[in-house]
Amino acid sequence: MFKIRSLVTALALASSVSVASAWEALPTEAPAPADNATTAAKVELGQMLYHDPRLSSTGTVSCSSCHNTMLGGEDNRPNSMGVNGQTGGRSAPTVWNAAFNSVQFWDGRAASLEAQAAGPVTNPIEMGMKSWDDVVARLQTIEGYQKAFEQAFGKDTISKENATKAIAAYERTLITPNSPYDKYVGGDKSALSAQQVRGMEKVAELGCTHCHSGPAFNGPGMFQKFPVIPNGYWEAQHHFSKDKGLAEVSKNPADEHLWKVPTLRNIALTAPYFHNGSVKTLDKAVTLMAKLQLGKDLSKEEVADIVAFLEGLTGEFPKQKMPVLPATPGSTFN
Amino acid sequence: MFKIRSLVTALALASSVSVASAWEALPTEAPAPADNATTAAKVELGQMLYHDPRLSSTGTVSCSSCHNTMLGGEDNRPNSMGVNGQTGGRSAPTVWNAAFNSVQFWDGRAASLEAQAAGPVTNPIEMGMKSWDDVVARLQTIEGYQKAFEQAFGKDTISKENATKAIAAYERTLITPNSPYDKYVGGDKSALSAQQVRGMEKVAELGCTHCHSGPAFNGPGMFQKFPVIPNGYWEAQHHFSKDKGLAEVSKNPADEHLWKVPTLRNIALTAPYFHNGSVKTLDKAVTLMAKLQLGKDLSKEEVADIVAFLEGLTGEFPKQKMPVLPATPGSTFN
Repeated sequence: MFKIRSLVTALALASSVSVASAWEALPTEAPAPADNATTAAKVELGQMLYHDPRLSSTGTVSCSSCHNTMLGGEDNRPNSMGVNGQTGGRSAPTVWNAAFNSVQFWDGRAASLEAQAAGPVTNPIEMGMKSWDDVVARLQTIEGYQKAFEQAFGKDTISKENATKAIAAYERTLITPNSPYDKYVGGDKSALSAQQVRGMEKVAELGCTHCHSGPAFNGPGMFQKFPVIPNGYWEAQHHFSKDKGLAEVSKNPADEHLWKVPTLRNIALTAPYFHNGSVKTLDKAVTLMAKLQLGKDLSKEEVADIVAFLEGLTGEFPKQKMPVLPATPGSTFN
Repeated sequence: MFKIRSLVTALALASSVSVASAWEALPTEAPAPADNATTAAKVELGQMLYHDPRLSSTGTVSCSSCHNTMLGGEDNRPNSMGVNGQTGGRSAPTVWNAAFNSVQFWDGRAASLEAQAAGPVTNPIEMGMKSWDDVVARLQTIEGYQKAFEQAFGKDTISKENATKAIAAYERTLITPNSPYDKYVGGDKSALSAQQVRGMEKVAELGCTHCHSGPAFNGPGMFQKFPVIPNGYWEAQHHFSKDKGLAEVSKNPADEHLWKVPTLRNIALTAPYFHNGSVKTLDKAVTLMAKLQLGKDLSKEEVADIVAFLEGLTGEFPKQKMPVLPATPGSTFN
């Protein structure tokens, strides 16, 4: 069920990561699954659904409320705020480049963007709909959605499956290429500063890229334990181990504190950090990752170099049109 | 302080409204005040601020959360949901064509779009910021806003005054011309159906346009009592008189139950209806307005004709680009 590759495999792969050769630019297109080819009509419908607060019980929370496409793809909060002001325990991951995650959610419990899109809508503390049947019934009352689904999937096709397919198709367009790092890897050696290049080399030397590998720096297909090295001082401050990660879903003690390796793309835009959003700044996040994952104490200069490099992972955001959402006849919310 | 023209004046004016001559198309541009000329840089900054949830204490509520520019300019809720899931007693008025309101808010307590924009940000149940000083301090930490304010107003100009000016400048672009009604008035007699023309004539004949006058059907500069004709049956169901309207602000008993006359533009998109959003459908809203304001019982056919006409007031929504909001360094919210 969970696409977990063993840490052994990951570490074996990591030994082939060299400073010079393993750096990869971000693809400008994301592959789509065989049963959900990306089409313009699906993307347009998906953009509408993604930004439509009527997919929540109160009519106030859309996908974009917590994974904001006008910002770094999330909400800059430690945890997100769902319907009626409710909050959960985890920090919203960015939607930008989520197409390059092998699995979705912090705990990787969804195998695809399609599966992920179904979750928050009926989560009682997120979008709070009682069921997808209720979502479908609501969408069916909106004439504009009948037309948009028809264009994307054919006549009378409003369903959970098609709604989540459309949202996933839209999300596959949310790619941020041409970061300074990508330009550097593409041959423009002036795209990164000397400090950023030092940070880039340090990231490889330290072993950060053992897990944060591949073009999205998300170790595709890999889960990792966090923290690897228990530290009472930092645990008391940040409670990283309170949430058991994958084990919360699988109920398998072997999965305790296993997490999907998150992308480093656009990380300068997505404070606060870690699964519980308990670290406010990028320099502290770098310091803690070195300490808790690699057992290393970095100098102030090393941290500054790495942060400068990570800032070079901020890409170009595609120009988007603002969706025009179809009208509700009468009132839907009490 | 409040631009109230007396009912006497309003009724005198109304006598000059004839079925044939008083119909006016919506202007495609809104006049700007002398001290806030509309510029492209202000509009761009205003669009960013309008859609930025970081103008709220929790980072979850933007102007657009309740006055949604992807929908009919509001949230299709009886009342809006502000920070931490809080709700108030009034229904969000549409932002579309708000530039043509002489006064703003249901009770008309703001004399301009600029004055209106300042209100919700520090309202504890809306956007919940402690003060505009806090808003300004937060915006000053965001480098991209320093640049955007510089382009719109000059160097080091982040302030409450300029933020609200930019938001107002953006709002002045939110105009929806070319409704079927506008085309009809412009000479295209096929733009409205026979039923819609019957509804249009009925609206004038009944006297709806005594108050809902002018191109935005908002009786520019006029306040009106609601309900005019007390009705125990409907009061028990909808509690229209619980909220004293302008008197809640002015504390003047003469202002009790006085309200700004709201626009009828795009009314088919903005259910539910009335200041407390207690009426879910447009046909019921029409029925109640005739009863409570004019003392008339409409037939089912008359209501259907008027609703058809009102549907002809849905305009063309301008194509908007999605703003890219500048990044927050580190985390702003706890």
